[in-house]
Amino acid sequence: MSRGRFITFEGPDGSGKSTQIRLLGGYLMKKGIDVVYTREPGGTRIGEKIRYIILDPENSEMDPLTEAMLYAASRAQHVAEVIRPALYEGRTVLCDRYIDSSIAYQGYGRGLGEIVSCVNDLAVGGLGPDLTIFIDIAPASCFERIGRSDGDRIESEDITYHEAVYKGYLRLAADHPDRVRRVDGSRDVRAVRDDIRTIVDLMDWDGII
Amino acid sequence: MSRGRFITFEGPDGSGKSTQIRLLGGYLMKKGIDVVYTREPGGTRIGEKIRYIILDPENSEMDPLTEAMLYAASRAQHVAEVIRPALYEGRTVLCDRYIDSSIAYQGYGRGLGEIVSCVNDLAVGGLGPDLTIFIDIAPASCFERIGRSDGDRIESEDITYHEAVYKGYLRLAADHPDRVRRVDGSRDVRAVRDDIRTIVDLMDWDGII
Repeated sequence: MSRGRFITFEGPDGSGKSTQIRLLGGYLMKKGIDVVYTREPGGTRIGEKIRYIILDPENSEMDPLTEAMLYAASRAQHVAEVIRPALYEGRTVLCDRYIDSSIAYQGYGRGLGEIVSCVNDLAVGGLGPDLTIFIDIAPASCFERIGRSDGDRIESEDITYHEAVYKGYLRLAADHPDRVRRVDGSRDVRAVRDDIRTIVDLMDWDGII
Repeated sequence: MSRGRFITFEGPDGSGKSTQIRLLGGYLMKKGIDVVYTREPGGTRIGEKIRYIILDPENSEMDPLTEAMLYAASRAQHVAEVIRPALYEGRTVLCDRYIDSSIAYQGYGRGLGEIVSCVNDLAVGGLGPDLTIFIDIAPASCFERIGRSDGDRIESEDITYHEAVYKGYLRLAADHPDRVRRVDGSRDVRAVRDDIRTIVDLMDWDGII
């Protein structure tokens, strides 16, 4: 049996990633594909503890490098405990956020640059996704939906930050056109779902269906 | 005013590092040097939360890479919040453990190798100590003192692990003879204290005394 496929979902909070992951998972399962859902930060017991530290609004003095290292720590555990074992059992992993989130949010949003992808590549031993669905929604519309004061430590950042993150996503899509596929997320849920199905159907599934 | 001096203490738990740090701090303060004590992992509010995750015996499934990333995260915060500001105020920082601990415990002890120093250099923006006191005690004697079952997640590792860590320390001392100074820790507290004073008196203090 060959390795399963690793598909990640990226985009701002409020872009509909979790809905679309569930819809795609159901679609793949109907085709007989064994699917694992997971998410970052978190995805493991230890990762959830790390996630709690990252998102706690009380930790306002957190240095951007600390934040980047904590995301990488959570990701290292997630890969070791969940993602790599599932892939090597031939299962397909659908993951809500992965390294691209760190590059967008810390590399671009916090201005940390290249350090972020370097640290993360070390953390995951080079394991990258086969396909990344980027649900593209302008930050202003997500920002309106989430609001300024009720969010966690990341969500409550201002619009300038979220615009820098968005620019990072666009850059990632431009730099990795074969892997990162942009889907217009401003449309109806079913239109987005259908685009994702088309992209996923066209990827290389040889050896696992 | 020039930057303060950054002095780190290394060696196994039970080697007497914290006693010797206090003794050296008192000695330096009598000379009119402004001293800051700190320790790793921890040293900050956020770092203590990370330390709790690292050392909790419940987290036995922690991957070695996760552990290394968490130490680096705690260190990034420690440098940003405590060490760098103190040094730039001209204060002398005495720190119980620093990057050498990660290289010894994760790089050698867990077999992670070069990744550890790479990740840590990124985490601290290249800030290294001016002097490192390595209190040298054979792991078997520390192991006897700490015991097998009562320690935290790191202390309760077996003797093979602690021997690999020890080998790492010896290697670091051999690789950086100007910075890492070995002190025989098997002797009386005062003999160790006097050796450390001699080493510290001989370091370059120009511009801060």
